[in-house]
Amino acid sequence: MANINDVARLADVSIASVSRFFSKPELLSKKAHARISEAVAALNYHPNALARNLLRSRSGNVMVLVNDITNPFISQVITEADKAAQARGYSVLLGITHHCADTEEKYIEQIRSKVADGFLQLSATERPMQLAREKNIPYVNLLECPPEQDLPSVQIDNIAAAFDMTSMLIAMGHRDIACLKGEFSDDYPSPVTTDRVQGFCRALAAQHIDVTPEWMLQGDYSPASGVAAAQRILSMAHRPSAVFCANDYMAFGLIRGLKDAGFRVPEDIAVTGFDDIDIALFNNPPLTTVSQPIEQLGWTAMEMLIDIIEGEEIVDKRRRLAHKLILRGSASK
Amino acid sequence: MANINDVARLADVSIASVSRFFSKPELLSKKAHARISEAVAALNYHPNALARNLLRSRSGNVMVLVNDITNPFISQVITEADKAAQARGYSVLLGITHHCADTEEKYIEQIRSKVADGFLQLSATERPMQLAREKNIPYVNLLECPPEQDLPSVQIDNIAAAFDMTSMLIAMGHRDIACLKGEFSDDYPSPVTTDRVQGFCRALAAQHIDVTPEWMLQGDYSPASGVAAAQRILSMAHRPSAVFCANDYMAFGLIRGLKDAGFRVPEDIAVTGFDDIDIALFNNPPLTTVSQPIEQLGWTAMEMLIDIIEGEEIVDKRRRLAHKLILRGSASK
Repeated sequence: MANINDVARLADVSIASVSRFFSKPELLSKKAHARISEAVAALNYHPNALARNLLRSRSGNVMVLVNDITNPFISQVITEADKAAQARGYSVLLGITHHCADTEEKYIEQIRSKVADGFLQLSATERPMQLAREKNIPYVNLLECPPEQDLPSVQIDNIAAAFDMTSMLIAMGHRDIACLKGEFSDDYPSPVTTDRVQGFCRALAAQHIDVTPEWMLQGDYSPASGVAAAQRILSMAHRPSAVFCANDYMAFGLIRGLKDAGFRVPEDIAVTGFDDIDIALFNNPPLTTVSQPIEQLGWTAMEMLIDIIEGEEIVDKRRRLAHKLILRGSASK
Repeated sequence: MANINDVARLADVSIASVSRFFSKPELLSKKAHARISEAVAALNYHPNALARNLLRSRSGNVMVLVNDITNPFISQVITEADKAAQARGYSVLLGITHHCADTEEKYIEQIRSKVADGFLQLSATERPMQLAREKNIPYVNLLECPPEQDLPSVQIDNIAAAFDMTSMLIAMGHRDIACLKGEFSDDYPSPVTTDRVQGFCRALAAQHIDVTPEWMLQGDYSPASGVAAAQRILSMAHRPSAVFCANDYMAFGLIRGLKDAGFRVPEDIAVTGFDDIDIALFNNPPLTTVSQPIEQLGWTAMEMLIDIIEGEEIVDKRRRLAHKLILRGSASK
């Protein structure tokens, strides 16, 4: 198999020139470029990526640090971020932490060892942010930036979105509204989770409606926790007439549980979701939900990360994209 | 920042010993290991992964080549494969091709350049298989191995699974059964797609039921194509009493479309899915479907790939895992 020396010899240039051909071709003369290009083709030479990346001390990879990709909202956002990375010539190294601090630490060690040129974090744990700050590693938080952190980040305004959806339920005539909160685990930070509850409470306060503690239900973003919430609601002496759910998956489970008990949605209890994943439209009834700009979230975050890696100036480093209310059958007038 | 020379000097060993500490610690004496370990801690030394991997000419990465991760069946299988890779100390480099030959080629080039030590292919395109054979690169096909390819592969027996599900519909008394096929694109090979249609047809033949060409409906694995199929069924003079769908997503859309037109599922038309993704249980009605062993598929394929990378002997290189019929409300007696 041909190596870099063979190419240099055939093209009659230095080894450094061949290396430059792969790392910074714009620095070569047209003539040198053409000669090396011919030699590479003639010898069917493929540079070893490890060696090539070592030369420019860049890996060509970006890491996506994420807890879990099984919810379609997350896998769709990552798909869009991946398209953006590919469009800029980068590959995505996926680091799934499974909500495990040790696994996260392993990926942090990899980032520190320059396996990737920068990373997107789709969670709010402290260690990755600390690494980015201390080691000055290109970083963008996607979806879960804690408000006190002054780091590049891309997400919607979750307080405003929850406020808008709850206000719409009030506008439909509901005053007895429950909130199905999401939470990953007791000690797992999630600004998104907190923000959505806050937006819900603010919307009630704005209309002088008291929060009913019994109706602040705890879920974990899974459909099964939606079913469990339905069972709790069914056991109540005084039931809410609408439930604001912090994601679509829990809304699916809640509707399932209510229907199993013979309740009609939305006639007996209206239900709203959050995210607008692809199948929200196909549920029975179709889900009234908050649409997050999935495509734009993924693209914007990855574009920003690569801009930072490539030393471009970032004008607005805290991007807050627009959400939209989607009115369908699960909650309607 | 400390480098490898500093560590060698402090520990009073050769640079080769420090390198060995990170690549093959079992070759070091206990004393040398302890001294290097202390020096590494004292200097807070982190080896550059690029340099380290170049030394052992291994990247520590495995690539997962996949068309699309937005369907939860795929993202769940990849999640399990990822857990298996992590358990063996490997990281996953995700190559999403978006059904695009050029993008696939880019990842093939990366694999050829040793960015990864081996790869899983979740599709049936020819180029990656050709690369694996010609360059002897560790390879396992997950889900979509063409029957004529003698390559390591892990999947269920899709012909048998489709046969079983169709036979169950027949056992419930149905004789007018439609098939909603999936297809990615006209020229995109998918043995899974072909196998499921074949299993369906064989089950009818086994009971001397003729295939009705009008009832062989074309979808594309998306929920929207399920809705479109419902509209075609509704326009028929003679309608089927049951529909076998080649995945859960199309079944969701089909049920949605039938219900919108006032049809009851399963009373008027029974519907079955394929995959048993997490939300199949929460649909209205819950989906009768073929359960694929998602966890086992991901783990088995990744374990096999890493065994091949590490030079272990593979006893049974064509693994066919067991499927299971899951009887729920969308098709029942």
